[in-house]
Amino acid sequence: MTKAVVLLSGGMDSATTLAIAKAEGYEPYALSFRYGQRHQAELACAARVAEAMGVAEHLVIDIDLRRFGGSALTGDLAVPKDRDLDRQVDEIPVTYVPARNSVFLSLALAWAEVLAASDIFIGVNALDYSGYPDCRPEYIAAYERMANLATKAGVTGHRALRIRAPLIRLTKARIIRKGMALGVDYALTGSCYDPGADGRPCLRCDSCRLRAKGFVEAGTADPLLTEFGISAP
Amino acid sequence: MTKAVVLLSGGMDSATTLAIAKAEGYEPYALSFRYGQRHQAELACAARVAEAMGVAEHLVIDIDLRRFGGSALTGDLAVPKDRDLDRQVDEIPVTYVPARNSVFLSLALAWAEVLAASDIFIGVNALDYSGYPDCRPEYIAAYERMANLATKAGVTGHRALRIRAPLIRLTKARIIRKGMALGVDYALTGSCYDPGADGRPCLRCDSCRLRAKGFVEAGTADPLLTEFGISAP
Repeated sequence: MTKAVVLLSGGMDSATTLAIAKAEGYEPYALSFRYGQRHQAELACAARVAEAMGVAEHLVIDIDLRRFGGSALTGDLAVPKDRDLDRQVDEIPVTYVPARNSVFLSLALAWAEVLAASDIFIGVNALDYSGYPDCRPEYIAAYERMANLATKAGVTGHRALRIRAPLIRLTKARIIRKGMALGVDYALTGSCYDPGADGRPCLRCDSCRLRAKGFVEAGTADPLLTEFGISAP
Repeated sequence: MTKAVVLLSGGMDSATTLAIAKAEGYEPYALSFRYGQRHQAELACAARVAEAMGVAEHLVIDIDLRRFGGSALTGDLAVPKDRDLDRQVDEIPVTYVPARNSVFLSLALAWAEVLAASDIFIGVNALDYSGYPDCRPEYIAAYERMANLATKAGVTGHRALRIRAPLIRLTKARIIRKGMALGVDYALTGSCYDPGADGRPCLRCDSCRLRAKGFVEAGTADPLLTEFGISAP
């Protein structure tokens, strides 16, 4: 089986991406990060998803991005609530973590090279998203080009490495339908930027609202809300 | 003053790069990594260099690359000694750390974005070097392109970020002459991949031998050897 490294945050999108990698026949190696995120509860979700989907290995790497600051997700700034999701695309919210996807992809690249994996999967999405620069197709393409020059692949003529972002042009509703068709149990996932101690979603941050919009548009209930006894918004 | 992030390993090349950044008028923010390297003694060198050169701040970030393995510098493999340095360029030695420069540059990118720094300096060299893929000019160019798509710079039309590798086409001898002209004290630096507990260089690894070759060609004694009472090879 061909190996692939799959970035797994524990949210909806990365769980769906993992299911896609499996459906395509890859042996998945899941990679998560304890990076100082205030929603560290997502790591419990990542572990549950990795176990339910039967990954070859699940690594959690510590990298304290709080040392740099600059984000509501790792710093002292409050997570914004009830934001207008139809805002200008060039307005980047304070939940953006500087260079986060580049840090995560670079560590995935290190593992992929050691494993001799051919693909790295990342669940970024440029449609129903928060406007982060490192979620756009042109970024992913530039990253892939760089990655092939960074590693042995670029020197010795090994097989090229691919950065796969299968959700990048899908709406949240399509992601959910695709995941459900592949048997993803969304009750195991968590999306909230500011969850309660028990993992209860706030329902008001960008991430909760994008998730809710997705389930409404997909015409199905979010099993996570059912689990917390919350009726759909 | 314009801020720049400077990757500082504590070796000759990064110390020279820091001196160049200062000479160009940048306010330098030095960044080092405790990544599980067997030559962790280099971090003491980095601290000495940062202090001697008066950086605005020196951050040491923990990121355990041993979790991935795959290198003599972080794993159980022995550091090769007395290698033929005129080997084929497409032969990558076991001291190569998979994707290391991409990991380091990505963390520098995170800090640069928070600091609003305009440049990231890295002391890579593609001439007197060990044949690592992530030391080549085409890699640095691809990284810069990716970095500008990864961050706010790429979205809001901020000033573009530059990845600066001022040593990339210099011989070790020219690097040493340049550094000495800028007042770099090479006695503070350490290059050895396999030093003794007191920081004493092994003199037989690639890095020691490239350094020795450089000082011979520059026609000057290595002050580090003088400090350890070692006569020049």
